[in-house]
Amino acid sequence: MKKRVGQYLMDCISTVGVDKIFGVPGDFNLTFLDDIINRDDMDWVGNTNELNASYAADGYSRMKGISAMVTTFGVGELSAINGIAGAYAERVPIIAITGAPTREVENAGKYVHHSLGEGRFDDYRKMYKHITTAQGYITPENAEEEIPRLIDAAINEKRPVHLHLPIDVAAEEIEVKAPYRYRKPNTRDVSSYIKMIEEKLKNAKNPLIIAGHEINSFNLHQQLEKFVNQTQIPVVQLSLGKGAFNEENSYYMGIYDGEVAEEQIKNYVDKSDVILNIGAKLTDSATAGFSYNFDLEDVITMNHRNFIIEEIKDSEVNLPDLLKGLLTMNYVSKANYPSYQGYQDNNLDINEKPLTQETYFKLIQKFIKKDDVIIADQGTAFFGAYDLTLYEDNKFIGQPLWGSIGYTLPATLGTQIANKHRRNVLLIGEGALQLTVQALSTIISEHLKPVIFIINNDGYTIERKIHGKTAPYNNIQMWDYKMLPSIFGAKGNDIKINNVTTSSKLKKVLNEINDTPNKMHFIEVHMDVDDAPEKLNKVAQAFSNQNS
Amino acid sequence: MKKRVGQYLMDCISTVGVDKIFGVPGDFNLTFLDDIINRDDMDWVGNTNELNASYAADGYSRMKGISAMVTTFGVGELSAINGIAGAYAERVPIIAITGAPTREVENAGKYVHHSLGEGRFDDYRKMYKHITTAQGYITPENAEEEIPRLIDAAINEKRPVHLHLPIDVAAEEIEVKAPYRYRKPNTRDVSSYIKMIEEKLKNAKNPLIIAGHEINSFNLHQQLEKFVNQTQIPVVQLSLGKGAFNEENSYYMGIYDGEVAEEQIKNYVDKSDVILNIGAKLTDSATAGFSYNFDLEDVITMNHRNFIIEEIKDSEVNLPDLLKGLLTMNYVSKANYPSYQGYQDNNLDINEKPLTQETYFKLIQKFIKKDDVIIADQGTAFFGAYDLTLYEDNKFIGQPLWGSIGYTLPATLGTQIANKHRRNVLLIGEGALQLTVQALSTIISEHLKPVIFIINNDGYTIERKIHGKTAPYNNIQMWDYKMLPSIFGAKGNDIKINNVTTSSKLKKVLNEINDTPNKMHFIEVHMDVDDAPEKLNKVAQAFSNQNS
Repeated sequence: MKKRVGQYLMDCISTVGVDKIFGVPGDFNLTFLDDIINRDDMDWVGNTNELNASYAADGYSRMKGISAMVTTFGVGELSAINGIAGAYAERVPIIAITGAPTREVENAGKYVHHSLGEGRFDDYRKMYKHITTAQGYITPENAEEEIPRLIDAAINEKRPVHLHLPIDVAAEEIEVKAPYRYRKPNTRDVSSYIKMIEEKLKNAKNPLIIAGHEINSFNLHQQLEKFVNQTQIPVVQLSLGKGAFNEENSYYMGIYDGEVAEEQIKNYVDKSDVILNIGAKLTDSATAGFSYNFDLEDVITMNHRNFIIEEIKDSEVNLPDLLKGLLTMNYVSKANYPSYQGYQDNNLDINEKPLTQETYFKLIQKFIKKDDVIIADQGTAFFGAYDLTLYEDNKFIGQPLWGSIGYTLPATLGTQIANKHRRNVLLIGEGALQLTVQALSTIISEHLKPVIFIINNDGYTIERKIHGKTAPYNNIQMWDYKMLPSIFGAKGNDIKINNVTTSSKLKKVLNEINDTPNKMHFIEVHMDVDDAPEKLNKVAQAFSNQNS
Repeated sequence: MKKRVGQYLMDCISTVGVDKIFGVPGDFNLTFLDDIINRDDMDWVGNTNELNASYAADGYSRMKGISAMVTTFGVGELSAINGIAGAYAERVPIIAITGAPTREVENAGKYVHHSLGEGRFDDYRKMYKHITTAQGYITPENAEEEIPRLIDAAINEKRPVHLHLPIDVAAEEIEVKAPYRYRKPNTRDVSSYIKMIEEKLKNAKNPLIIAGHEINSFNLHQQLEKFVNQTQIPVVQLSLGKGAFNEENSYYMGIYDGEVAEEQIKNYVDKSDVILNIGAKLTDSATAGFSYNFDLEDVITMNHRNFIIEEIKDSEVNLPDLLKGLLTMNYVSKANYPSYQGYQDNNLDINEKPLTQETYFKLIQKFIKKDDVIIADQGTAFFGAYDLTLYEDNKFIGQPLWGSIGYTLPATLGTQIANKHRRNVLLIGEGALQLTVQALSTIISEHLKPVIFIINNDGYTIERKIHGKTAPYNNIQMWDYKMLPSIFGAKGNDIKINNVTTSSKLKKVLNEINDTPNKMHFIEVHMDVDDAPEKLNKVAQAFSNQNS
């Protein structure tokens, strides 16, 4: 069948379940955008800038498994580069398409706008090589090879890919031989690895699973839980990857975050003698500055493309094959382990005094419902939120490895538009919000109804805790946050705005939110400049030590 | 004398005249920021995000000749990358400093936040190679070599440089042997080139100078004007580089922008038989899609590191040497050329009808005072503004080669803070403003008093003119722009806000601005969605053709 390359590309992207395309128009992508807006199975979501588009695409992908975005050459793709790098680091697949000058313009080396004015056109593509798992320059001749290869790579590696699409190529017709079908990678036999793991486990006194973010990326929750139920090995999660394991499962012990973890968890983990690291990365932020006390030699690393046991290192094997292999294992643990205590939200003191971080998170804990999506920005919000107890059906989104503040507001655009029926609860600080504030405008224009809590505590609290408690560089301009929705076009009937300074008011507002689920809720929550979740105080100290 | 590397770096940067440092704090730069805020000769300007910081640094550099900014590793430096690339394209020197993890962390390949989680630390540095003229990894051992080398490179090439500064290196003391002094590059003898040019000119009937942006970058206005006065060769400017030549000089003919130029200018330029391209780039946006009709073989290219005459191509020679050489020439043109007509701002119809783009720019023309800095964003604003007639003392800032919309609002933070006493007049559209709106907060927190005109014409007009006149991707959410300053903390006494829909109101507001110079002025100007400066209509058509 004859199709324009742009049409064919969108057919392929639709096939993998993407129904929203994020991005910003530019003259090198405009005619191609017609091939998006003219489809019934897709919507164009115009973003306020390209960084926000990339964050939104990341959020959408974390919900739906993959996403796509379109920017223009140079100015657009480079503005998105931080967001794409974050998706690379945290294994979130995004199909990042750059609408580019025509092949004729490129071949003639013309000095066109958005180029560096040197006649070269490959600089940006080369920059993207560092932060994408595969890249391609699409032509009419290679489209039917390259587009499937790139989409498959995004799915198989759970990482972004980059498509350089000259605008004339998008418009050119090709004869499409067959519709795109996702091709799974060949399955690897991992039985010898599984035997080795089984042997080790048989001699273990305190076996342990550390579950991490790759379980979320590869959507392997069921397989992991089945393995745990079979083998009865207790599980901890890292904050990087919260949601990897069902917190309602009886083999769950809790969050392990190095020396700042609860005593009972720390005791078990640090004396573990066989540790299965399943899709986890022991990063500084997840382990309070690498403060684990177990022996790294006891860790069997089961990461995607990174399997390590004793002297064996396999950088080819993929995580789904490893999980599949684990399910064949005949082992049952008899270890005693501390059962998960859950978030301690008792001793709640509801009063008219200034709200504290502690009370705030206790009330948020009570507020969370089954099926909620919780998104927490990488400041006080994340460090308070990752200890919350979640239902199996909750989804938790943070970005603790990449740690780009401001990520979550546009990410919430993406998560909420991916499924308008789930309640999305965003926890963000005002320092982070300022970086990406205009994403709120798109949330409003798309008629989304998330619940957004803005912590206003007068500056970059996470930085203050690391260094420069009262330094001017940690101050930010005070905004009138609660006025933002109306500036950005929100209508009175679609939104409830609240200003909270006490626990008593917060409790009232949380009830109101539950009572009016069909509105967007925007809550400015005031807390003291020096107040922070206990975990943040401790991790900040570890970061400070790491930098000296 | 003993200094911390961070102190020494700031000493060097201070030596070249930088007194504001733009950026965003992050834990890999915090302790180094103390070496900025503790100085009397420098101020830290905290930005709302890193892209805005890079644009502000660009604006400051265009006023002061060089600027500096600090971001954090990964998330920060990558967010700034589009702004740095723009400065590279348009030859604006910026010292871009990345506060990075310690050498110990890097050497151990640790999985730290803001890394890609793979143990590599050189990806971002490699990405910066494409968009900076020199790069360095600063250590205590090389600081006294590398820092001067990099600052000299920024000055000599008028392009950004990148410094990777591990946070432990910034804090380490070194013995500084001698304070930094800028070292000019060795002067090249260009007399043989000058002789060749002179020979050609002697046979020319219609000699011409096309002056461009490198004159602004290298601050060679006086040399160029002296050369013109000596040789009496008529001059046109490109929109890319407006300000390169004094529009009050009698040898000035006007703006040349290809087939859309005024007839008389076009007639002279297109029949020119010897054309000195002095620091200009014939880009698509400057020439309405390369629509010049002169013979490219008649062009002598005198660009920085790119001198071309006949078969000779010299990619070493620098622009200041070429200008110096030109001043030794013994040639006087006798050509007749059309004298500059100036902006036609007559037939002004002041009334109560909806304001048009034409009337808007006519009134802006009357509004401009000597010494004003005019900043025009790359949409309708730029295409209307580049034809305005400027006084010798005006400064004009646009970004037509890089063309990143939203650039000018943060750039105005930079231009205005570089000299608080000059009136800065920003012309920007609302589509552009949305990308970088939070920069307004910093303009307010720094107590700056620019005059900001926001054209509100309901969408991306420049894109509509190229393709998709009524397409949904060219729509944007309607904001209540005039409320923005108060949200961002502006106090009633410091700012005048106006909403303009008619020429009569605009005229009144312009008078009011002149009468109250000690306030910031923020004017929302409404114009019809289909209205655009005539030049934009024509250039947009050229872009549309180029993309098909």
